[in-house]
Formats: sequence, structure tokens, C-alpha cells
Amino acid sequence: MDATPPGAAVVDLLGVLAHGELTAFIRMAVDADLAPTLALKASMGQVACTDFARFTQLVEHMRARGIDPDAAMAPFVTPITAFHERTRPKGWLEGLVKAYVGDGIAKDFYREMSAFVDEDTRAAMRATLEDDGHADFIVQIVRDTIRSDRRAAGRLALWGRRLLGEALSQAQAVAVERDAMAALLVGGGADLAEVGRMFTRLTDNHQARMARLGLEA
Amino acid sequence: MDATPPGAAVVDLLGVLAHGELTAFIRMAVDADLAPTLALKASMGQVACTDFARFTQLVEHMRARGIDPDAAMAPFVTPITAFHERTRPKGWLEGLVKAYVGDGIAKDFYREMSAFVDEDTRAAMRATLEDDGHADFIVQIVRDTIRSDRRAAGRLALWGRRLLGEALSQAQAVAVERDAMAALLVGGGADLAEVGRMFTRLTDNHQARMARLGLEA
Repeated sequence: MDATPPGAAVVDLLGVLAHGELTAFIRMAVDADLAPTLALKASMGQVACTDFARFTQLVEHMRARGIDPDAAMAPFVTPITAFHERTRPKGWLEGLVKAYVGDGIAKDFYREMSAFVDEDTRAAMRATLEDDGHADFIVQIVRDTIRSDRRAAGRLALWGRRLLGEALSQAQAVAVERDAMAALLVGGGADLAEVGRMFTRLTDNHQARMARLGLEA
Repeated sequence: MDATPPGAAVVDLLGVLAHGELTAFIRMAVDADLAPTLALKASMGQVACTDFARFTQLVEHMRARGIDPDAAMAPFVTPITAFHERTRPKGWLEGLVKAYVGDGIAKDFYREMSAFVDEDTRAAMRATLEDDGHADFIVQIVRDTIRSDRRAAGRLALWGRRLLGEALSQAQAVAVERDAMAALLVGGGADLAEVGRMFTRLTDNHQARMARLGLEA
């Protein structure tokens, strides 16, 4: 695996990141269609279009570096689609929790990976990984909902656990398929113990996010 | 009807325009979900987010003038939803034709109405009505499709006719319900003959748009 040129891993990372943003945009807009108020639709649209703007930035960055964005994204269509097929929200509230939790897990992972890439790629990734607070309204809505509906709290806690499980399982599938990305992690000086610690950090952050929503992880 | 203060008509116009943009954003993003290529999804996402940016501008303009955007949009939820329910595209290609043709009809109508409002409102409307060419890719895709599939040409021509019919029928329903908007048109110096000429201009423009797509109107 060490023979894989580092360029391939960078292409993979930018590709998965870009396709993730494009899909997040579409899923959030589709969920906005189901939201019960215009204000909620507007907030969700805002999140969706922020995702889309990040997708556009990544595509521009890839083009500027001579990377074909379609080719870079192609290997990740299947796992990302599988994740979304297996975690279809029942209604807009589950959609919001999924956006908040799923986005959080994905970005934690990319942040970890960005330690191993060149400065130029890291800068492009950082712009995508910035938290601009647009999704903060989700915390308020989930907290308000479970205050008046304790059954929702139990249901959404389960939902959060399922999202983490499915995300890790798709990440696992990607790691097996994409040698270059796995090599980036391991070849970048991360031994197995370090990979283990990374997964501990990912699940710790997930628990912190669930707690912020008022949910058990 | 002349007793209705002109303010109510302006609120109506901004409300219907804003809700139309919000809905166009969601519908285009939902259709992007069905598009067969990443490039097409990206182009459709671009159109969707342009619609959303215009929605945001209109909401800001309403807030700056002390208009409650939710209240202004509320009366138009039913007719706009009805239009979209009655014109559900079968697949992404019908979705693109609907976006191009439907958006065109709506904007022609708003452009006509903008002649009757104050300068400030007209400026806010003009920004929304600008054609930034983002939807030009639709023309190319439709032309490419019907060149290789003549049956698609017949089907899409019928689809365009249906879209015009449903748009006019919902506009009619709005005119009956919203006295202020109707009064704006008639009270603004437009006699019935002028209203008739306006509808002639709308259908002429519709035919020109269909011709641009390579379709019979």
C-alpha cells in the first residue's frame, strides 16, 4: 500500500468531501420540503445552500489543481448513497438530527485526515470544515421538542446511535476499497493504536453532540 | 376594491415572489436528487441556490420595510402548492422543462406587475427577476435530448402546454382571492383591454421560450 502515490489519497479525500457536501445539500433541501413552517424551511434552505457553496469551492479547488471532480467523486457515490438509503429519516425532525449528527461525524473524520495532507489541500478542506453556526437552530428545535415529548427523546437517541453505526460501517467499507486513503492514515505515521485513539475521539465527539441536543448517546 | 391601501398589494407581490422562490429552490433540489450525472446535479444545485439567495434577499427587504415575511407568504402557500401538486414532473427532464418554463411565466408576470409599484419595491423585485443565465444549460440539455428522441419532443411539448394552463389557472385563483393585487393591476391604470394585452404578451413569451427549447408551444 505504501507504493500508492500520496496524490491519489488527496484526490480521494477531496472527492469524498465534495460528494458528501453535494449529497448533504440535496438531502437537506428534500427534508425542507417536509418541514411544517416557512421559517423552518428557510433555515434548512440556508444550511443546504451553505453545503452547496462548499461543494462549489471544492470543485473549483480540484479544477485548479488539475483534478477531474466527477472522477474524484465517482468512487464515493455508492457508499454515500448506501448510507443515506439505510438512514432515511421519518419526517423532518429525524432529518434535522441526521444532518446535525451525520455532518458532525463526517467533519470530525475529515478534520483528522487533514493532518496528513499538504498545506494547500488542508486550506481547501479547512474552509469546508468551518462551523459557521448555521446549524445551531437544530439544537434549539430538538431541545424544544423533547421538552414536551419525552417519547421523542428516546426515539431520537436510538436514531443517533443508528446514524453513528451506519456512518462507521460505511467508513469501514471505504477504507477497505480505497487503499490510498487507508495508506494516508497509516503511512502518515498513524499506527494502529493511533487509529484506535482516532475512533475514540470520533465517538467522544459524537456523544458531546448528542448531549448538546439533549439526547443520550 | 379601490379602498384597499396600495401597501397591501406590495405585501402580496413580495410575498408571492418570495414564496415562489423558496418553492422553486426546494423543487429544483428535489429534482437534482433524480438527475443521472453529478455534473447535472451540480448545475441544478446552482440554479436552486440562486433561487434561495433571491428568496433571502426578498425576506431581508420585507423585514427592512417592516413586513412580516411569513404573514406575507402565507396566502400563497395553497395556490403555489396546488400548482406543484398538479404538475409533478415524471423524472428530472420534465423537472428541468418545468423549472425553465414555469420560472419564465412567473417572472414575466412579476415583471408586468412591477410597473405598478413604488421604486423601492421595484428595485427589490428587479434583483429577483434578473436573468443570470444559470438556467441556460437546460436549453442545451433539452435540445440534445429531443435531437435523439423525437417522442420526447412530443411529450415535452404537451408538458409545456399543461404547465402554462396550470400556471394561468392558479394565477386566476390568486386574482380572485387577493383583491389588492387585482386592484393594483386595474387601479394602476390597466383597463381590461390592457390586461388582455398582458396575457397575450405572457403567452407570446411562453411560445418564444418553448421555441428556444426546440419544442412546439
